[in-house]
Amino acid sequence: MNSINTIFKVQIFGESHGAGVGVVLDHVPPGIPLSDEDFISDMNRRKGGQKGGTPRVEADIPELKTGVFKGHTTGAPLMIWIANENTRSGDYEKQRDVFRPGHADFVANVKYQGFEDFRGGGHFSARLTAGLVAAGVIAKKILSTFSFEAAVTEVAGLTDPEKGLEKAIAAKDSVGGIVSCTITGVPVGLGEPFWDSVESRLAQAMFAIPAVKGIEFGAGFEAARMFGTEHNDTYLDPGGNTVSNHAGGVLGGISNGNPIIFKLAIKPTASTPKNQQTYNHASGAVEDFSVKGRHDLCVALRAPVIVEAMAALVITDLYFLAQSRRGPTAI
Amino acid sequence: MNSINTIFKVQIFGESHGAGVGVVLDHVPPGIPLSDEDFISDMNRRKGGQKGGTPRVEADIPELKTGVFKGHTTGAPLMIWIANENTRSGDYEKQRDVFRPGHADFVANVKYQGFEDFRGGGHFSARLTAGLVAAGVIAKKILSTFSFEAAVTEVAGLTDPEKGLEKAIAAKDSVGGIVSCTITGVPVGLGEPFWDSVESRLAQAMFAIPAVKGIEFGAGFEAARMFGTEHNDTYLDPGGNTVSNHAGGVLGGISNGNPIIFKLAIKPTASTPKNQQTYNHASGAVEDFSVKGRHDLCVALRAPVIVEAMAALVITDLYFLAQSRRGPTAI
Amino acid sequence: MNSINTIFKVQIFGESHGAGVGVVLDHVPPGIPLSDEDFISDMNRRKGGQKGGTPRVEADIPELKTGVFKGHTTGAPLMIWIANENTRSGDYEKQRDVFRPGHADFVANVKYQGFEDFRGGGHFSARLTAGLVAAGVIAKKILSTFSFEAAVTEVAGLTDPEKGLEKAIAAKDSVGGIVSCTITGVPVGLGEPFWDSVESRLAQAMFAIPAVKGIEFGAGFEAARMFGTEHNDTYLDPGGNTVSNHAGGVLGGISNGNPIIFKLAIKPTASTPKNQQTYNHASGAVEDFSVKGRHDLCVALRAPVIVEAMAALVITDLYFLAQSRRGPTAI
Amino acid sequence: MNSINTIFKVQIFGESHGAGVGVVLDHVPPGIPLSDEDFISDMNRRKGGQKGGTPRVEADIPELKTGVFKGHTTGAPLMIWIANENTRSGDYEKQRDVFRPGHADFVANVKYQGFEDFRGGGHFSARLTAGLVAAGVIAKKILSTFSFEAAVTEVAGLTDPEKGLEKAIAAKDSVGGIVSCTITGVPVGLGEPFWDSVESRLAQAMFAIPAVKGIEFGAGFEAARMFGTEHNDTYLDPGGNTVSNHAGGVLGGISNGNPIIFKLAIKPTASTPKNQQTYNHASGAVEDFSVKGRHDLCVALRAPVIVEAMAALVITDLYFLAQSRRGPTAI
Repeated sequence: MNSINTIFKVQIFGESHGAGVGVVLDHVPPGIPLSDEDFISDMNRRKGGQKGGTPRVEADIPELKTGVFKGHTTGAPLMIWIANENTRSGDYEKQRDVFRPGHADFVANVKYQGFEDFRGGGHFSARLTAGLVAAGVIAKKILSTFSFEAAVTEVAGLTDPEKGLEKAIAAKDSVGGIVSCTITGVPVGLGEPFWDSVESRLAQAMFAIPAVKGIEFGAGFEAARMFGTEHNDTYLDPGGNTVSNHAGGVLGGISNGNPIIFKLAIKPTASTPKNQQTYNHASGAVEDFSVKGRHDLCVALRAPVIVEAMAALVITDLYFLAQSRRGPTAI
Repeated sequence: MNSINTIFKVQIFGESHGAGVGVVLDHVPPGIPLSDEDFISDMNRRKGGQKGGTPRVEADIPELKTGVFKGHTTGAPLMIWIANENTRSGDYEKQRDVFRPGHADFVANVKYQGFEDFRGGGHFSARLTAGLVAAGVIAKKILSTFSFEAAVTEVAGLTDPEKGLEKAIAAKDSVGGIVSCTITGVPVGLGEPFWDSVESRLAQAMFAIPAVKGIEFGAGFEAARMFGTEHNDTYLDPGGNTVSNHAGGVLGGISNGNPIIFKLAIKPTASTPKNQQTYNHASGAVEDFSVKGRHDLCVALRAPVIVEAMAALVITDLYFLAQSRRGPTAI
Repeated sequence: MNSINTIFKVQIFGESHGAGVGVVLDHVPPGIPLSDEDFISDMNRRKGGQKGGTPRVEADIPELKTGVFKGHTTGAPLMIWIANENTRSGDYEKQRDVFRPGHADFVANVKYQGFEDFRGGGHFSARLTAGLVAAGVIAKKILSTFSFEAAVTEVAGLTDPEKGLEKAIAAKDSVGGIVSCTITGVPVGLGEPFWDSVESRLAQAMFAIPAVKGIEFGAGFEAARMFGTEHNDTYLDPGGNTVSNHAGGVLGGISNGNPIIFKLAIKPTASTPKNQQTYNHASGAVEDFSVKGRHDLCVALRAPVIVEAMAALVITDLYFLAQSRRGPTAI
Repeated sequence: MNSINTIFKVQIFGESHGAGVGVVLDHVPPGIPLSDEDFISDMNRRKGGQKGGTPRVEADIPELKTGVFKGHTTGAPLMIWIANENTRSGDYEKQRDVFRPGHADFVANVKYQGFEDFRGGGHFSARLTAGLVAAGVIAKKILSTFSFEAAVTEVAGLTDPEKGLEKAIAAKDSVGGIVSCTITGVPVGLGEPFWDSVESRLAQAMFAIPAVKGIEFGAGFEAARMFGTEHNDTYLDPGGNTVSNHAGGVLGGISNGNPIIFKLAIKPTASTPKNQQTYNHASGAVEDFSVKGRHDLCVALRAPVIVEAMAALVITDLYFLAQSRRGPTAI
């Protein structure tokens, strides 16, 4: 449900306009030094407040409530809590006459029989990713010889994100984008065949990020238009080095030592400043609708640090899984 | 590892050139009538033997070894075994001097320390999907009011699959393709927020299919180039009917009542008839290499029934998950 | 690790002398009314302060941080936080020269490589059960037609708990006890064969309660001394009513409609007021040792409400599991 | 459902009078040498045919269908199949007028809505443990520095099992017994706090063995009658050696380096040669009933090797779990 991973378990909770959001990490190795400073950089990357971004800005200082003692992880479950501060729920109470198009309002209302916390998307809000980014900081520390680097490589169809954002501002409409991620330092052999493959597990994790609608590894959809001799990565030596990396670092679901490379399609922010048509329960008609609240024009811009965190959480689990399988003596 | 799902568990096993392949389904509802005939259509769709396909053709009659009694499922674990018949392992013993490009040979050799069954890809072979297709037949019976329909919509960049295949035959090279899948009859509310979202779970499952390198839902990567007002699906009535289905039937990870629509990028068959260059362990040099064995020019052509099976297995689990959450009395 | 259940997931966290303890419940049905009053009775039953009990008494008011909106569960993860208030960590800092006999100090020190929070047992403390009791209140509400009733039926070998406690006070030593639990209102058919049997799952849960060293169902160990004709419960009618309940309500791991009955052996409180001998790291010798801190003479006395909570959490999961397995139409 | 463990997964399937029984082991380390001879000793220990035992005797040669190549495990899922040979289903067809007391017939009939394979207990049969014993052989090989030794220490209340069996033969009635198990060579630190504690996980596994009705660790139920100073195991040195082992090798759920010791209560064989009274559906009355089929007088006698196998399967998982939690560099 709201958790992921087999060994290095991640459980999230919280709502956009409730008391806060958080995460529990289980099976954290003991002895990892942690301080408030460790979180500042990634938490700031996730925060709003940039040009074209939501004016809702919060301190977002993660409180490490459990699992840390004398500045180090203890090995017990580590709970991170991030209080909500800058909430204006009134914006949402007014909007109950419509299910906002592109949002989870309608499905949540049916699924939870009207009991859902609807304010700002409630539990479906991207606000939940604050806890994940904090958790990702810890995963990155565990995998200290790996690097996780994601960036926005396209906004509104333009490879210069700033120009894409200008296009959105000019159109007074929200826009989508592409986020690309590269993981380096990955040894050969992570991932398990079939459903715990590197691709399966990363894809599962990435689609948990709000607004992600597609993922491709290496050559991805372009691979579908290539010949086999073009796509195959020729081996150059017994260590598995290759001429190219069309496979995106994964063969048979297992890491092959090349950088793991994937791209994500991010849909336009569902909340757009432009008027839309939609069904209104009060009037019983399809009519003009204007979104209340404070929103980003392009959510892709805040996604990279979330993508890195998700990737680090999953890869840590696959790392633990790979090194778990040994007997007490040489066999 | 080699299993999927939370409640309706699917565990696979087997190798391409061993005794056979199989699957265990756990938590099957009792009382589902099953006969050999039920499997013929889907098993035939998965089989090779078509134009441009591998000449390795096997009877592939699934044996229901356990969990069936007097022609009905009992509710106990249902084990399906499909014996391998038409294996020519000699083809593979000869090829140990190279790790075949685009295959799992290299990663398997490192991960399993040389103990892997390397014949025909061993456990990494698409042969394993025979068991999944058989399992999918049962899942489709459980979800009898749903429909799962996948088709090849592009081969070698051409929307007419036959022309794409001609292109491959002319080039004497393998090619990739696109498979599109539509699931209808899905009620509102399947899927759970975040990692058990419909998209997360379907994506995890689809990347377990050999050769899949990308997935997109609804407008997918095209969504990244759309404005919010273009992409959002306007509601027309209180039942959630919409003008369009850019979301591909999923909002906030939850099914919204529209058909679930996704596309998969399938890479070209790694085993291509054309000569390739790769590293040879015997000679210690990068040199010409020619694949032995019997292979499809385009694996995408056999994928649709596998995609349907995977989808049905996952959606059954999400269905069970959704209906599990009720107390013994109205609350 | 620190979680239980397949569908109705329970994740705990916290330490005895840290900021607090808590629990996340996932897959809670929406619409369950919850108020602070709901928790008072069970939380009070768990609290210390009785005769022969620890003088550490805390308010223990569970804060429902997430998953509740307008007085009802929303269906999103429900996080409960119970702050620690009355902690005297200094007691423990002084005691680091010895690993307290009967406690987890030594194993935690080895397992967590010296990084464990050792104050008051840290994460191993029975303090963690405060969160579980709060979670149990919610499970009992879900299973409103069941009843869970546990009681202390023996202390220090005496069937009158009060007399047993007098014996402990007179001996100035801690004592053990027996807790018996009866679950009624259970329909036929809960539990799954083998490892998700009612007995397997309840036993797993009960051994997570600190100090539990044995469990038996129905006639239990006495059954090992009975003849088959004595032990078997004769059926009286087609509804499965029986003359006796030696099976304790479970056959083949599945509930049979009779009350589920089990007993737990609770060891004496590891922290006894009497002097003990143990190894001292400072002196390098085995020498006299006296426990600091505030402790119960008999932890069994506070166990019943914890036993009920654990049972309710597990049975809710089995209930959800049983009702999950249905297709969308009659088959 | 019918599987156990987090990493080293064990999935069982099969029926007493169907085609056979089996098991899939997932996440087996590659490179373990395996031959048919490895299984003979333990499979023979499980088999019937002794004095007072069932005359149903089968070859029970486990077929390693997948996951083994050139005499070694490959690391892929290992499927073991044990065909049923000596089945006399006719015995059971005749008995459908009664639900046999002490068996799962009634609960299975309700739970599976009449679709269960009722012959010889079907999926609930102890026949399923044949696959587990075979799996246990592999687990013991993985944990080659551990030893698992279980023995019958009481039959029909007598500490000499042979005399207990004579008592049963004389009474023409089935009897119960006690099985004791000792695991040595266990390092400090296996098990996780709470539900993955050594006690929790072993208890869960043991109650999956048909006829087990109780389990106690170390002093067990006797601990409930001891003083703290009697029960606590005094430490003798910094390595954790202790004067006694009342804890049974487990403190706070974690192994403490002492042998892990536990006892199981096994109920009398439900199928007793003596006549019993029970409800008859044909006559609509409670009347005399006599069991058909071939059965042991005391199932405890065949249990030790099953207990060892279950213990080895669980401890392997805890071992893998413990060694999984490390980062790629010293932290």
